Amino acid sequence: MKLDTRQAAELLKQQDNVLILMHKNPDGDTIGSGYALYYALTDMGKRAALACSDPIPDKYGYMTEPVQPLTEEPSFVVAVDIADVQLLGDLEETYATRVDLCIDHHMSNTLYAKDTCLYKTAGATCEIMTDIIGKLGTDITKRIADCLYTGTATDTGCFKYSNTSSHTHLVAARLIEAGADYVAINREMFDTKSKNRLLLEQAALSGMEFHFDDRCAVITVTREMFARTGAKEADLDGVSALSRQVRGVEVGVMLREKEDGSIKVSIRTTSWVNASDICRHFGGGGHIRAAGCVLNGPMEAAKARLLEQVEAALKEQAK
Amino acid sequence: MKLDTRQAAELLKQQDNVLILMHKNPDGDTIGSGYALYYALTDMGKRAALACSDPIPDKYGYMTEPVQPLTEEPSFVVAVDIADVQLLGDLEETYATRVDLCIDHHMSNTLYAKDTCLYKTAGATCEIMTDIIGKLGTDITKRIADCLYTGTATDTGCFKYSNTSSHTHLVAARLIEAGADYVAINREMFDTKSKNRLLLEQAALSGMEFHFDDRCAVITVTREMFARTGAKEADLDGVSALSRQVRGVEVGVMLREKEDGSIKVSIRTTSWVNASDICRHFGGGGHIRAAGCVLNGPMEAAKARLLEQVEAALKEQAK
Repeated sequence: MKLDTRQAAELLKQQDNVLILMHKNPDGDTIGSGYALYYALTDMGKRAALACSDPIPDKYGYMTEPVQPLTEEPSFVVAVDIADVQLLGDLEETYATRVDLCIDHHMSNTLYAKDTCLYKTAGATCEIMTDIIGKLGTDITKRIADCLYTGTATDTGCFKYSNTSSHTHLVAARLIEAGADYVAINREMFDTKSKNRLLLEQAALSGMEFHFDDRCAVITVTREMFARTGAKEADLDGVSALSRQVRGVEVGVMLREKEDGSIKVSIRTTSWVNASDICRHFGGGGHIRAAGCVLNGPMEAAKARLLEQVEAALKEQAK
Repeated sequence: MKLDTRQAAELLKQQDNVLILMHKNPDGDTIGSGYALYYALTDMGKRAALACSDPIPDKYGYMTEPVQPLTEEPSFVVAVDIADVQLLGDLEETYATRVDLCIDHHMSNTLYAKDTCLYKTAGATCEIMTDIIGKLGTDITKRIADCLYTGTATDTGCFKYSNTSSHTHLVAARLIEAGADYVAINREMFDTKSKNRLLLEQAALSGMEFHFDDRCAVITVTREMFARTGAKEADLDGVSALSRQVRGVEVGVMLREKEDGSIKVSIRTTSWVNASDICRHFGGGGHIRAAGCVLNGPMEAAKARLLEQVEAALKEQAK
C-alpha cells in the first residue's frame, strides 16, 4: 500500500525491534535517513538497529554512532532510499521479501515492500524522513538534524540540482533551527577532497583538450594516472562533470582507459546537445544531459571516432 | 533612523523618481538587490533608475535589462548593499550626503544614510530585499525572483557559509515558488569558469606543495603563469580557498608574485590555527580563518620565512 508521511509515522509508532536497511555503496542520503530514523526510534525507547551490505565510508563518521545488532529476529523491517531489492547487495537474499516499509524518493521504485512511502518529487529521502520524524512526536535532536541535513544537501548538490524544490529549502530551514552543523557538513561533503583525488584531478585536467571552437572539452584518464597518483576508482566520482565547467563548452567528454584496454566514455552536455544520442551510436545510452558508452582502444583511435560524432551533433544546431 | 522592512516598504511606497545606487566592483548581491528593487518600483508604475561606478559584469546579463536614466534629478536615493560611502566609487562625490535610504546587511555599515534598514544577521541584502518587496504590495515576478535568488545564493556560497540561516532558506523557498531559475543561475555562478581561469587554476594547483605531515598546503602563482594562460587579476578570485581543500590540511597558503616582485600572501585555515596571528607577524592581518600580508621577494625566500611561522603555529597545538 502507498502511505503518506503521516500514515508512515503512525505505522512506525506501533513498532518495536525494528531493523533499518540502507542500500549498497551507501551515500549520504541512505545513511542520513537510516541513522536519523534509528536515533529517533531509540530516543522513543524502542529497540532498533541498522544494516548495510557495505561499510559506511569514514567521511560520514561525524553522524554515525556505533550501533548494536538486535538480539533477536527483527519484528519490522524498513528500507530507506532503496528503489529496488537488488540495491540491498548481500542483504538481498535475506530481506528481499521481508521489507515491511520502504521510504524513498526514486521514480524507479519497484514497490517491492509491503507498504511504501514514496514522494517522487522529493530531492532526497531525507526530506521525506524529516516530515515523518516530525510526526513521530519525538524531537528532531542535533544528531538527527545532522543526518537529515547531510542527505538533503548531498542528494541535491547543496541545493543546486533541479531536484531541489521549495520544500527542500523549508526542510533545510527546519534542520538548521534544530541545530544541524551545516557549515562543517558542507565543507566535508563539498569542499574537501583526498590528496590522491586532487592529484588525479590535476593529472586529468592538465591534459584537457578543446575542440570545435571550444564548444567541446575532453578529459583523458589513463591507467598510468591512477598508478602515479595512488588514486582509486572512487576518486573519479564527479570528475566527468568537470569536463563541462568551462564557459561556452556544450559537450564535455571524459575518456577513461580501463584495465582491459577498452575506453569508457562519459558525456555531459550543457543545454541542447543530446548526450544519449551520441552514446547510442556506440551501443551505449543514458540521459539527455549525461550518458555513457564503451569503445575499443587504443585511446587516440577511440577519441577520434567519438569526436566525429560530437562534431556531427554540434553541426546539427547550425541546420 | 533605523527602519524595519515594513517601515522601509512604507517609505518606498510614497516615493517616485527613485535612483538606486549599487557599490563599486558590483557583485551578485548589490546587482540582485538593486535590479529587484528597480523592477518592483517600475512594476508599480514609478519612475526609477540604477547607477554604479563600474560596469555590470557580463555574467549577470540574464537578469539585467537595459535601464534608461532618469530625465530629471532624483527625488529619492536608495543605496543597496553599501556599507560605506567610499564603496560608491566615482559616485561618492555626487551622492555621499544624499542617500535617503540604505538597505544593507554589513556589520560595518556606517549609518551614512538618512534612514537605514540594516539586518546584520542576514546572509545577503537580497534576503532583506525579498522581505521588503513582499511588503510593497507588488508581485515577486520571475525576473525579480532571479535577481533576489542570485544575490542570496552568491553571498552565502550557495547556502554553505556560516552566514546562512534558516531565514535564508525560507527566502530561497519563496523565490523558487516565484519562479527563480535556480538551476541555470547556480550553474553560471558556481559551476562555470572561463578557460583562462581554468588554465590559471591548473597552473597554480599543479605545483601545490605539502608540508608538515600534509597539514599545510602551498599554492604558488607567478607572473609567468598569468602571461602564459592569458588570465587576469579577477581570474584569481577564490583560488586561495582551494589551498585548504585537501582533507587534513589545516593551513592553506597562496603566494602570489606581484608586478613589483613582492609576494602577496593569503592564508586560509580550517579549524583551529589563527591565520591573522601568522600574518600579523609580517605586518598584515585579517580574520581568524582568512588573513593576508605582503613579503619581500624572491618567492623562495618569502616562502621559507612564511613556512617558519606556519610551523610554529602548528606546533602550538602540541602544547
